[in-house]
Amino acid sequence: MLLRGRPRALGAGALLLLLIGFFLFGGYPECERPEPGERSAGGGVGKLCPLTPRVLLDGLRGATVLDGGPPAGLNHSACAPQPPLPPKCELLHVAIVCAGHNSSREAVTLVKSLLFYRKNPLHLHLVTDAVARNILETLFRTWMVPAVVVSFYDAEKLKPLISWIPNKHYSGLYGLMKLVLPGVLPPSLAQAIILDTDVTFASDIAELWAFFAHFSDKQVIGLVENQSNWYLGNIWKNHRPWPALGRGFNTGVILLRLDRLRQAGWEQMWKRTAKRELLALPATSLADQDIFNAVIKEHPDLVQPLPCVWNVQLSEHTLAERCYLEAADLKVIHWNSPKKLRVKNKHAAFFRNLYLTFLGYDGKLLRRDLIGCPSQLPPGAEQLQQALAQLDEEDPCFEFRRQQLTVHRVHITFLPHQPLPPHPHDVTLVAQLSMDRLQMLEALCRHWPGPMSLALYLTDAEAQQFLRFVEASPVLSARQNVAYHVVYREGALYPVNQLRNVALAQALTPYVFLSDIDFLPAYSLYDYLRVSIEQLGLGGGRKTALVVPAFETLHYRFSFPSSKAELLALLDAGSLYTFRYHEWPRGHAPTDYARWREAQKPYQVQWAADYEPYVVVARDCPRYDSRFVGFGWNKVAHIVELDAQGYEFLVLPEAFAIHLPHAPSLDISRFRSSFTYRDCLQTLKEEFHQDLSRRYGAAALKYLTALQQPRGPA
Amino acid sequence: MLLRGRPRALGAGALLLLLIGFFLFGGYPECERPEPGERSAGGGVGKLCPLTPRVLLDGLRGATVLDGGPPAGLNHSACAPQPPLPPKCELLHVAIVCAGHNSSREAVTLVKSLLFYRKNPLHLHLVTDAVARNILETLFRTWMVPAVVVSFYDAEKLKPLISWIPNKHYSGLYGLMKLVLPGVLPPSLAQAIILDTDVTFASDIAELWAFFAHFSDKQVIGLVENQSNWYLGNIWKNHRPWPALGRGFNTGVILLRLDRLRQAGWEQMWKRTAKRELLALPATSLADQDIFNAVIKEHPDLVQPLPCVWNVQLSEHTLAERCYLEAADLKVIHWNSPKKLRVKNKHAAFFRNLYLTFLGYDGKLLRRDLIGCPSQLPPGAEQLQQALAQLDEEDPCFEFRRQQLTVHRVHITFLPHQPLPPHPHDVTLVAQLSMDRLQMLEALCRHWPGPMSLALYLTDAEAQQFLRFVEASPVLSARQNVAYHVVYREGALYPVNQLRNVALAQALTPYVFLSDIDFLPAYSLYDYLRVSIEQLGLGGGRKTALVVPAFETLHYRFSFPSSKAELLALLDAGSLYTFRYHEWPRGHAPTDYARWREAQKPYQVQWAADYEPYVVVARDCPRYDSRFVGFGWNKVAHIVELDAQGYEFLVLPEAFAIHLPHAPSLDISRFRSSFTYRDCLQTLKEEFHQDLSRRYGAAALKYLTALQQPRGPA
Repeated sequence: MLLRGRPRALGAGALLLLLIGFFLFGGYPECERPEPGERSAGGGVGKLCPLTPRVLLDGLRGATVLDGGPPAGLNHSACAPQPPLPPKCELLHVAIVCAGHNSSREAVTLVKSLLFYRKNPLHLHLVTDAVARNILETLFRTWMVPAVVVSFYDAEKLKPLISWIPNKHYSGLYGLMKLVLPGVLPPSLAQAIILDTDVTFASDIAELWAFFAHFSDKQVIGLVENQSNWYLGNIWKNHRPWPALGRGFNTGVILLRLDRLRQAGWEQMWKRTAKRELLALPATSLADQDIFNAVIKEHPDLVQPLPCVWNVQLSEHTLAERCYLEAADLKVIHWNSPKKLRVKNKHAAFFRNLYLTFLGYDGKLLRRDLIGCPSQLPPGAEQLQQALAQLDEEDPCFEFRRQQLTVHRVHITFLPHQPLPPHPHDVTLVAQLSMDRLQMLEALCRHWPGPMSLALYLTDAEAQQFLRFVEASPVLSARQNVAYHVVYREGALYPVNQLRNVALAQALTPYVFLSDIDFLPAYSLYDYLRVSIEQLGLGGGRKTALVVPAFETLHYRFSFPSSKAELLALLDAGSLYTFRYHEWPRGHAPTDYARWREAQKPYQVQWAADYEPYVVVARDCPRYDSRFVGFGWNKVAHIVELDAQGYEFLVLPEAFAIHLPHAPSLDISRFRSSFTYRDCLQTLKEEFHQDLSRRYGAAALKYLTALQQPRGPA
Repeated sequence: MLLRGRPRALGAGALLLLLIGFFLFGGYPECERPEPGERSAGGGVGKLCPLTPRVLLDGLRGATVLDGGPPAGLNHSACAPQPPLPPKCELLHVAIVCAGHNSSREAVTLVKSLLFYRKNPLHLHLVTDAVARNILETLFRTWMVPAVVVSFYDAEKLKPLISWIPNKHYSGLYGLMKLVLPGVLPPSLAQAIILDTDVTFASDIAELWAFFAHFSDKQVIGLVENQSNWYLGNIWKNHRPWPALGRGFNTGVILLRLDRLRQAGWEQMWKRTAKRELLALPATSLADQDIFNAVIKEHPDLVQPLPCVWNVQLSEHTLAERCYLEAADLKVIHWNSPKKLRVKNKHAAFFRNLYLTFLGYDGKLLRRDLIGCPSQLPPGAEQLQQALAQLDEEDPCFEFRRQQLTVHRVHITFLPHQPLPPHPHDVTLVAQLSMDRLQMLEALCRHWPGPMSLALYLTDAEAQQFLRFVEASPVLSARQNVAYHVVYREGALYPVNQLRNVALAQALTPYVFLSDIDFLPAYSLYDYLRVSIEQLGLGGGRKTALVVPAFETLHYRFSFPSSKAELLALLDAGSLYTFRYHEWPRGHAPTDYARWREAQKPYQVQWAADYEPYVVVARDCPRYDSRFVGFGWNKVAHIVELDAQGYEFLVLPEAFAIHLPHAPSLDISRFRSSFTYRDCLQTLKEEFHQDLSRRYGAAALKYLTALQQPRGPA
């Protein structure tokens, strides 16, 4: 890619001269003027190689006085020699400011594009609010990408440093934080690349890092020219932009020499400039970018202009075409319009496809070590590799064991989520699903107004489909108290209990209703549970599981009963059944439906083999046993665990939930058709009971005894 | 990427000298010897820059006499200067030999990787058997990638040219066809890159093309060294490889100067060598590669050795590590083990991830024009763009209209398919599905032993899941007469009728049973239909639709009736219903279930509004109307069309199919919850009727009248 395009314009001989000049004299040769009629980004007046500020600014100034011809200075890449790349295993530092749910999703796409092309170890410095930190910490911990280090910095602490600046840009206060990075990043850090979350890489970031080597002694900031006429002024009547050199620079991609900025008293410098300008201007329009430009206007020797391909700006009225039509290779794309991907310009589809590549890219494929560099595994990865290496591929349960060890990438609160402060008796509905159950979400929202914590098992591409699905649904997008946690697919078996544990761990209320996605709760259930929790005095450390009796309908459409009386009438009419009445009555028999019919108050029931009721428990309940993957015994084991820990089971007389019909899942069909599957489930059950005996001793004997009773199909 | 790694080893000064040498003297400088103890691919004896044959062969010869130390000659990339790239819009030619279903899938992944990195227009020259041609012609026609031209060459015609060569390689006769390409490709074509289907690009092919510029006047073939000790001999007792220079060369990636080969009498040259060697050797072991190497051994001046990174060979005992551990950048990966992705080597996971990237890559994202080159749209693309541009984004039915215009990529017979020659009364079951119905396939195969043509609506990643699903199922993988056609997902609405049309167009028997994936046919249906078709004499141009009465069960598990008598008993017991008895009885009312109960022979029924039976018709029946996307009216419109064309509807007295329960699809939920959706469906219906009137005149009036009758929900 390097040098590409040059031979076309100059030929090999000129290339040689250029390189000789570059290496021998440490500078740049005088650039060629384009032939008359030749397409030129400089419009016939600019130089083709505006790599030094002087040349660039000549071009920029030229532009302001020209009529008609394309303004100059936009095409810096045509003859920019790529500086030598940093050594293969050198650590590169990248800083990103990221706040909130939506920016976190954006940042992940940016990071995927970075990782796809990178060949160097990376240290990501993430300046985040609490929401983004929570999301990204979980994500990187579970992503386990080798040769990536992540540090977090608290954006809240930085707010006082910049909140005095009035700012009208859509990025809000966070947009200004790039100004204070030299003081925030570790003092030992000499240089870093600063990126907006709305950029996408189309090349190796090491090529960008290499431009640090171009900096003269005085230069401290590397920037690409702003590819619009904003800073030229007069875009509309009374449009008064901040001062800038010509078209100014765009701060979506910044190379910062942090060491020199600190030495030069950067903090005082930009504050002084900002305060002075704010005497005349009411606020920044483009956040940090206005201030960077004002400082650079005052101190043009601070800036090292970068080739335009390193920040191709795709706003609605972008002039970027002049850059990319000539360029051999695009390096970084910047979606710097508030419309982002919906921006309209002639080549939007082209750029969108590059972006969509990474949006849907399977992030687990980026878990690749850097071949030829010392191994830099993230925490836990080595033990995981060892555990995986110890698995026996000939073991018939190999797939189960591998699935159980798999660390899935987890993106918690994938969509905006603003729960109310938790009430002491509040309860969160906890469930898990994959794409084939999305259509349950609206109905579930209508039946359960309370908080929900849902784990979704999706590919990266499906996560985007899910996002569009929610956005298109008024019911779903109106809800603030439903948290969606994306667990990325990996492996052949559905990790049902890992999913439940993710959703459970993210519940924010003191109590949780451990449900399944195919159940619709009674309309009154949420209120009724909160009242029951309060009345039963569950708060005081009492280990109780409230049982919500489960029913099922076999019709796609049916009229949901609005009361217990209606439910009983439907039951009597044969329109409803107790759950799995035909296939597996043991699963709910201990709930004692006959007693429930008549019950006026909660009644206690005893555990029995294969009992798997839907229960409400305190959030600190035992986790699900993640060895059970695919279909079978996943809830049963959890109920055994509750019983073993001394939970009492109280059936609530007015509570119910109804299961809607669905086609058997792939995992169930596999279970039914495969002997291996059933044999493995039996092996897992036995291992579970051995563990149980180890942990609970003789008290666990009853579960083993129960297991050995004759029974129907498991 | 260019020059990367060099500065590490030599420093900028040496780089300069190297470049001066390269450009001024048109050759290569003497290469550095590594320091003692420094990691060296040359093992301390080979040169680091074996770019000319002489230097390379020095290294290779050295290897054969060394003890212990790594053999030389494997690392050609450390100091290979990247030659200047071809001009931005120059057309590059690539030839690939591809035969059968599995190679066609491989070729698609290769092409995706090519297209992802390419920046030049490409002309693909595909030498194919009938199967691959059928698949790839459809694929490229529907893929519509700008700036890609595809030509096909009939592999059958080439077989006589090489079938005299005994060959033991797993690629069979097709593996040898690369030898005859100079005579097969157009005489005007001067040079081309020849690729095996099992290579994956990790870089721009223009960088490889650029090596043509390195060829001396005598050189005609560019090759990478073979990265194993195969040709050194003595791998096992009596191992006698074909003659080769040192380790020989690998022919997975070949640069061919076709013009010079033709001039030099290539055909005679390789035939002479092959015949001579075959006097002593029983057969080729590695197909064309053995012969290429034997020729090169005889004429070493023909070959231009290429840097090892352009063909990183991942066989089980590869020596490629010596190449890629040092290299800054891998360019082409070659899965040259029969185990392909399952090959075991230390870095297999790393390479697998690169491969999986393209396996699951959404091919529609590669439909991007080359910015800055003259637009080169494939046939139909311009009209399509115009039609799309004419759509009104404010039209509430915009999504429907866009979906209807969408040209989906289609990969027909995605899996091996070997149908029997069609019988004159044979009938193919035609249906369509997406991932959430995969679990129906096994049951369907058990119920229908005859041929099936199924369209699957999948993403590229899902197509791979589907492939694994079939491979894991003994029932499915045993079937030779089920054709799976992948239609790649694009857009928000399920293109149900486009899918049906793809499956219908690919049916190979004279009759088709137009079914839906949720239906299981009576076990006897396939035989019964063939007999009925024969007995009713349908062959003689009689326009008949045989109606298969439809029923439904609401239970996940139920015992499928083995006869009409059993079915009627279940119906009477309330375990079965006539199809959509509760929700939409109009859809099947004209079938007249009461009459069917008693019927002993086929009876004719009349069309009525909203009739949507499942029918058996001749393959040349009208296509489905692709304007109906998502849910609603898609079959109804087809039945109207049949009626309008004068088809008679004959209900078969012993035929039946039963619908299994499933959760409502996403499209149905959207339909139910969205007024727009229903309004648009109404609009589409009206437009359909207008078209009907245009085509059938007054005869179509009855459909319009029927439409205007009051009714229940559509």
